Amino acid sequence: MTETAYDATAEPTRPPAEPDHDVPADLPSPPGPLVAVPPAPRRSPAEEARTLVAGTRTATLATLSEDGTPWASLVMYGMLADGGLALMVSTLAEHGRNLERDPRASVAITPPSSGADPLQSPRVTLAGRVERPGPDDEAEVRAAYEEAVSAARVFGRFGDFSLWVLRVARVRWIGGFGVMGSDDAAAYAAAEPDPVAPTAERAIAHLNADHADSLLEMARTLAGYGDATAARCGGADRYGLSLEIETPRGAASARVAFAARVDAPDGLRAATVELARRARVAGA
Amino acid sequence: MTETAYDATAEPTRPPAEPDHDVPADLPSPPGPLVAVPPAPRRSPAEEARTLVAGTRTATLATLSEDGTPWASLVMYGMLADGGLALMVSTLAEHGRNLERDPRASVAITPPSSGADPLQSPRVTLAGRVERPGPDDEAEVRAAYEEAVSAARVFGRFGDFSLWVLRVARVRWIGGFGVMGSDDAAAYAAAEPDPVAPTAERAIAHLNADHADSLLEMARTLAGYGDATAARCGGADRYGLSLEIETPRGAASARVAFAARVDAPDGLRAATVELARRARVAGA
Repeated sequence: MTETAYDATAEPTRPPAEPDHDVPADLPSPPGPLVAVPPAPRRSPAEEARTLVAGTRTATLATLSEDGTPWASLVMYGMLADGGLALMVSTLAEHGRNLERDPRASVAITPPSSGADPLQSPRVTLAGRVERPGPDDEAEVRAAYEEAVSAARVFGRFGDFSLWVLRVARVRWIGGFGVMGSDDAAAYAAAEPDPVAPTAERAIAHLNADHADSLLEMARTLAGYGDATAARCGGADRYGLSLEIETPRGAASARVAFAARVDAPDGLRAATVELARRARVAGA
Repeated sequence: MTETAYDATAEPTRPPAEPDHDVPADLPSPPGPLVAVPPAPRRSPAEEARTLVAGTRTATLATLSEDGTPWASLVMYGMLADGGLALMVSTLAEHGRNLERDPRASVAITPPSSGADPLQSPRVTLAGRVERPGPDDEAEVRAAYEEAVSAARVFGRFGDFSLWVLRVARVRWIGGFGVMGSDDAAAYAAAEPDPVAPTAERAIAHLNADHADSLLEMARTLAGYGDATAARCGGADRYGLSLEIETPRGAASARVAFAARVDAPDGLRAATVELARRARVAGA
C-alpha cells in the first residue's frame, strides 16, 4: 500500500467475488442504487485484520493437542510492527504444551466492542506458525506482550512461561453476514491498522445524533439512492462512510468515499465535513 | 450429582492438585488462615463449564483445515439438555467445510461479562466431536440454536447451512490465574448449570456496597482470618461466597460455604443472610 492519497473513484481493492449464500428464492434482496455511482474504496481484508488486531488484546488460540485434535483456548497478545502476535503461554496449560510440540496455530479475534449481534460484528482469523523469538527480537516481543498485559512483568518471570511469535500466513476477515475476504502474509504485513479506528465509534454516534440530514443527502446524491427517506451511518474508516439507507423499495447498504484517504488519527471530522459539503453541492 | 443438601464441612469435590507455576523464590505468597477451617465446597469444573455454557451464546470454534492445521473462528451456539452444543455453520465458511471433512472440534467460551483482566476471568474449553443431528433430535437441536440465534429462523433455510451437535468429551475450566480443573464427558453431562448464576453479579455488588461489615465478619470468624481488616465478595455461587481479604500479612482469598446448596434461582439472598448470621454468632 502506498502512502499517497488515491483516486476515490478508482476500482476498490476488494478480492474477487466469493460464492454467495444459497438463499431461498422467496427472500427479498436489497434494492440497488437508482443511478450508477463509482465504486467507493474500502479497507482490504488485510487492513481490516491489522485494524482489529491493533484494537484488541484477547484472542482465542487454536492449537493441536497430542492426539491431533484441535484445542481452543483464550490468550492475550501484543502486536509486533509487522502484525505478528507476541504470545506468552505456560507449559502448565494445554495450549503451551501444544505449541512446544507443533507450531501450527490460528487465532480468532473479536473486538471487545462487538455489537448486540455477534454474527454481524467484524472478526478475523489469522493462521500461521509460532516460533520462539531469537536474540534479535526477544526484547521487542517481550515489550509488545508486556505493553498489552502488564501482569506479564510478574508472571513472565515464572519458569513455566515462554514467549512465542505467531507469524501470520493466512488472513480471513468476516465483516458481518455475507461480508468477508481473505489476504495472504505479504498483504497482511504491508497493511496498516486504520489510524481513525479509535475515534470511529464516537464519530458515528455524533453523525447519527446530529447530522441525519447530511447522511440522507449523501445517500441521495453520492450513493445513488435518490429515493432514500432516511440514512444512518453504520461505519466510518479512513476511506469513507458506510450508510444504512431506507427507501420505499426496502433497506440497503452503501459506501460513500472521502476525497482522499485519511492518514491522521484525528482526520475523520474534516473528511466527513468535506463529504457533507460535496453531497450538498451535488444535490443543489 | 445428588439433588439433596450436603454437608458443607465435607471435603470439596475438587480435582487432585495440579502442578503449580514455577514461581521465583522472591515473590511473596498469600497468607493462610490463622486457624484451621473446614474446606468449603465449590462448583466442580464440570459445573463451572455448564454454568458458563448456559450463560453465553458465542464461542470460538477450533477445527482442522484441509492441510491439518488448526483454524479458529467465531460461532454462536445453543445449549442442549445434556450440555452438548447446537451449531449451525455454512459450507461457504472454512469451519463449515472443515467439520464436513473432520468432526474433531473444540470450543473456547468466555462469558460476555468478563472483567477488566481477561486472564483473571473464567473461561472454558470443551473438546469432542461434532455429528449431524438424527431424526430423533433434529427438532431439539434446531430449536436450541434458534432460541440462541433468532436470525437462524431465516438463514437456517439457506441451502449452505447445516446443523451440527458438538458432543463434549473433555472439559477444561480456567477460573483465573492458577485456578483450574478438568472433567470428563460423564461429569459434564451430569452437572447442572448453577441456578443462581444469573443473579450473582447483582448480589455481589449489593454485598460489597452495603454489607462490608458482614463480609469482614465472615472473613474473621468463618474463613479463619482473625486479623482481617477488610473483605470484599469476589464471587457468589450456589455453594457459597468467595472473599478477597486484606490482612496486615497481605491479601488472601478464601471461600465461605452456605449451610446447604442453593437450588432455587432466587435463593442467594436467604443463603447469604444465614451466612452473615452464622458469622455474627461465631464472632460473639
